[in-house]
Amino acid sequence: MLAERFGGRNSRLLKGIGDDTSVSSQKGGAALLATTDILIENTHFKRAYIPPYLLGRKALSISLSDIAAMGGEPLFFLVSLALTPGTPKKFIDELYRGLGDVARETGCVLAGGNTAKAGMEMTVSTTVIGEAPVKRVVYRKGAAAGDLVFVTGTVGGSALGLKALLSHDGLALKRVPWKDSVKKHLDPAPRLKAGQALAKAELATAMMDISDGVALDLKRMCIESRRSAVVYLSSLPISDELKAYGEKTGKSPFLDFALTGGEDYELLFTSPEKNLRKISALSRKLNLPMTPVGRIMGRKKDRVITVLDEDGEPMELKKLGFEHF
Amino acid sequence: MLAERFGGRNSRLLKGIGDDTSVSSQKGGAALLATTDILIENTHFKRAYIPPYLLGRKALSISLSDIAAMGGEPLFFLVSLALTPGTPKKFIDELYRGLGDVARETGCVLAGGNTAKAGMEMTVSTTVIGEAPVKRVVYRKGAAAGDLVFVTGTVGGSALGLKALLSHDGLALKRVPWKDSVKKHLDPAPRLKAGQALAKAELATAMMDISDGVALDLKRMCIESRRSAVVYLSSLPISDELKAYGEKTGKSPFLDFALTGGEDYELLFTSPEKNLRKISALSRKLNLPMTPVGRIMGRKKDRVITVLDEDGEPMELKKLGFEHF
Repeated sequence: MLAERFGGRNSRLLKGIGDDTSVSSQKGGAALLATTDILIENTHFKRAYIPPYLLGRKALSISLSDIAAMGGEPLFFLVSLALTPGTPKKFIDELYRGLGDVARETGCVLAGGNTAKAGMEMTVSTTVIGEAPVKRVVYRKGAAAGDLVFVTGTVGGSALGLKALLSHDGLALKRVPWKDSVKKHLDPAPRLKAGQALAKAELATAMMDISDGVALDLKRMCIESRRSAVVYLSSLPISDELKAYGEKTGKSPFLDFALTGGEDYELLFTSPEKNLRKISALSRKLNLPMTPVGRIMGRKKDRVITVLDEDGEPMELKKLGFEHF
Repeated sequence: MLAERFGGRNSRLLKGIGDDTSVSSQKGGAALLATTDILIENTHFKRAYIPPYLLGRKALSISLSDIAAMGGEPLFFLVSLALTPGTPKKFIDELYRGLGDVARETGCVLAGGNTAKAGMEMTVSTTVIGEAPVKRVVYRKGAAAGDLVFVTGTVGGSALGLKALLSHDGLALKRVPWKDSVKKHLDPAPRLKAGQALAKAELATAMMDISDGVALDLKRMCIESRRSAVVYLSSLPISDELKAYGEKTGKSPFLDFALTGGEDYELLFTSPEKNLRKISALSRKLNLPMTPVGRIMGRKKDRVITVLDEDGEPMELKKLGFEHF
């Protein structure tokens, strides 16, 4: 069944669907990247608001985002579906259509999978295998004191989108306000080209994707790099829509969304200040903002992340970010 | 947290836990194997009868069984856990201890994973990456007319074990009867050595693991190989315990269990008759029965699998095997 839906081919994949495991050829000298994610109904999504097509897209995109964060190129993916009884065939078809479209867009080929029966909650588990030249893989651990901290695109939009979806329960998707943010939440774009270009040009000393908010993920990067960091709150790049939301509601789009909101799937990376011009050029070339938002400092025992407000004063934060668990 | 629990190392793994993806080196000329499985509470197991330690063992073993079925060697694994609220720390510790023990026993190193919150049902999703020399990978598709069909170990035990567990709901595990079969169900042994030895000696023309019963899985192998097969019902190797169960209850241990019972995780393979002596020698060396149970025939449009009873008469079967979904 699966084999018919996914016509994609990859000369490296010797055998995909239809055997006990996928079989692919290896390239000596290249690093193999492997990552797995699981999306659970009612924890990570509700069927009430995410169309199955977008659920399929998102399930693959979030794993591809991890490959992007290493500067890698995706090769193939495996998917495990656990479906609740009575799930309509149309739903499953749409979910696979979403997986298939992202697969085609990114050159990532379906190599295997299985379907099982769930009781109350559906789950979609994806594994993506990718690769990169060994010496160009970008880890979380390479941030050096003095490096600038960058983020791609805009942040906080996904959190606004989720909020809009949850507070308009039952409304048809096209009638939910804050559409760009809703799209950002439901259909995040893995930053594969940006990650690969940064790695290839050796511009990123450390890199990861932002899944749980800039503050929390930067903290994780600092811990791996044994460094600390400052973040300039009002430097965080936000969308026009999030800005408008802030103005309309009086809430801080920076503090409540951009700094601590989850699931943006943008890239967070560090680079020495001397690369600023090259990064600007790359950003223009890719038509993707790459905004400096902070700086890496020396190792610190506590308060790994310091957030400075508009006056340059350190802020007291209740929480750093979004944690599913 | 995960990194501390799993001390295992593998020189091929350049980076495991603690980054966006695992990073490993590739070996040019070798085939890369990748497989994923998902165990869902109340579909694949009930917490009432499986101790968390054995759940951890089983989650990894069933994916390793897929690697075994290709004749491969495991390299590393990824795990996604979705835990229901209030799952005790002890439960999680025990689950990881089970994963860790199987990992050590088989030389398969933890390379990554994540933990998420589930609502009503826990799920454990495992991905195993392995490899094998390209020319020695054994697929499902190589069975030739005239080949004998073999199974390793004994079959049907897991189904008896499950039946015993379900019909002694609430009884402490050690008091549930049919202990060997219960162990077979809860803690199946992936046949890695047998799979590797068969592949290395080029004794298997086709191979797969038996997860849904001999009849159904042999049908799948025949479809991939574009062949049909006959199975001699009473040749199916059963344990002394399953034999005793049959005698005690009057049920056929062959028909109700060995032929159609699920989750044995033994190997099903085909080999030309001339290899019989070599296979016997290998079986003795590994101390693992390898029993001829049927023969591959030419391509057939319908009735891909014919089961012959003790008198050599074809049987009418209501169902071929066990299907989760």
